[in-house]
Amino acid sequence: MKALLLIAHGSRRKQSNDEVVKIAERLRQNCSAQYPIIHAGFLELAETLIPDGIKQCIDDGATSIIVLPYFLNSGRHVVEDIPTIVNETQPHYPDVDIKIAPHLGDSPLMLELLVTSANTIQ
Amino acid sequence: MKALLLIAHGSRRKQSNDEVVKIAERLRQNCSAQYPIIHAGFLELAETLIPDGIKQCIDDGATSIIVLPYFLNSGRHVVEDIPTIVNETQPHYPDVDIKIAPHLGDSPLMLELLVTSANTIQ
Repeated sequence: MKALLLIAHGSRRKQSNDEVVKIAERLRQNCSAQYPIIHAGFLELAETLIPDGIKQCIDDGATSIIVLPYFLNSGRHVVEDIPTIVNETQPHYPDVDIKIAPHLGDSPLMLELLVTSANTIQ
Repeated sequence: MKALLLIAHGSRRKQSNDEVVKIAERLRQNCSAQYPIIHAGFLELAETLIPDGIKQCIDDGATSIIVLPYFLNSGRHVVEDIPTIVNETQPHYPDVDIKIAPHLGDSPLMLELLVTSANTIQ
């Protein structure tokens, strides 16, 4: 059973973290046919942290997990920190396939999203 | 003449800033019919800063500018810092209409972008 784990940086500002949790809820409402298990997690400063988010997915029955970095740039968090945590967590669950998706700035849809955002205020 | 000014936070890591400049270049290649002037700028830590980005757009002939925050969450930078800088800059150019677009996490396309990113690694 496939899981999506949306990972944001985490903020001291509760509202920013709540926005990420809400995006995970909207994903759950719209994409459950493809990904029956969807959770949100954070690299730091907020709960749920990545290892606990992975555990949540597995407790819900996940056999494969896609960690989806909610980051715009390929900075240290995306290139080093998230992979390191995932690689440290993976051996605890040898039967679960855990992969990391590209960060969002890499998406071919980003241009369309940017122009759509710009056009909303015409 | 319409301009788009893509504004990211700015990083000490040159590569992150270069990624933003590259996205502006891709926008320029793909969206010049709708937005003949497109530049990138930064809130802090990198050049071009917002007031200089606005001036660049106007020097290129912009009569209206959409400032497009390349931010995922509605944190202080989006809610306070960018509007404050734009509001301080606007009076220098009374004939130019400067508006701020919503941040990216607000976009109805974000779910689609997230799922597309996840699907790339199936």
